[in-house]
Amino acid sequence: MPQNPFAFALRGAKAELEEGSSFAPKFDADGLIVCITQEASTGEILMVAYMNAQALQLTLETGVAHYWSRSRNQLWRKGDTSGQTQKVLEASTDCDQDAILLKVVAGGDGGACHTGRKSCFYRNIEITGEGVRLVMQQA
Amino acid sequence: MPQNPFAFALRGAKAELEEGSSFAPKFDADGLIVCITQEASTGEILMVAYMNAQALQLTLETGVAHYWSRSRNQLWRKGDTSGQTQKVLEASTDCDQDAILLKVVAGGDGGACHTGRKSCFYRNIEITGEGVRLVMQQA
Repeated sequence: MPQNPFAFALRGAKAELEEGSSFAPKFDADGLIVCITQEASTGEILMVAYMNAQALQLTLETGVAHYWSRSRNQLWRKGDTSGQTQKVLEASTDCDQDAILLKVVAGGDGGACHTGRKSCFYRNIEITGEGVRLVMQQA
Repeated sequence: MPQNPFAFALRGAKAELEEGSSFAPKFDADGLIVCITQEASTGEILMVAYMNAQALQLTLETGVAHYWSRSRNQLWRKGDTSGQTQKVLEASTDCDQDAILLKVVAGGDGGACHTGRKSCFYRNIEITGEGVRLVMQQA
């Protein structure tokens, strides 16, 4: 795999990164960039995952979300086993180009989490007299 | 600063991490966890930033978003200079507890981005015949 398959732009000056039209994603030391995936119709956050350059390229080229699985150490086309394929309606990046946001329509049951829930964010963090705990969100 | 100020739980088995009530956030090699910050009223993603244990603790204790600035290498109470203080209505974590999601009400002008825009995600990534480019979103 080429390291920079799309000829993603080289990282330039701050003004160019923030205001320019060159896409120069900042991959971390492991070659990954964080991606937030949001249900287009509701704005609900479905998941947070990581992409390497190839996953990002494939996502942009095919319009279907691809990620890099850090636990399995492999490219991962979301939905291949679950049916929860994510059709990308919009891809954006942030001011310093070190994060990706996808607005998607999820196939299958419309969910994203491997636990069977729609969103991976199903527990609130709450402080009680006994410390901090996770509490399941109400359906 | 204590390393584990809240006595965040130790990382346990997968089932406990996914279904349990113990909050055992997974900090990366730099001691950071990614945080997505969403406008509570609209679901719009305002920003993506990082927290160390202290920033996470302060956010939960005070109900106001704190982050760790990787560029300035310091704790950062969002809004201290911009007035865009983020009141946290809900904090949640994902299935494997390696990401935080905040739903907030932003003070000041309601925005979050240091460029003056409401959201840090103001440019779409688009493919043209000439390659990949960033295109400013319509206001």
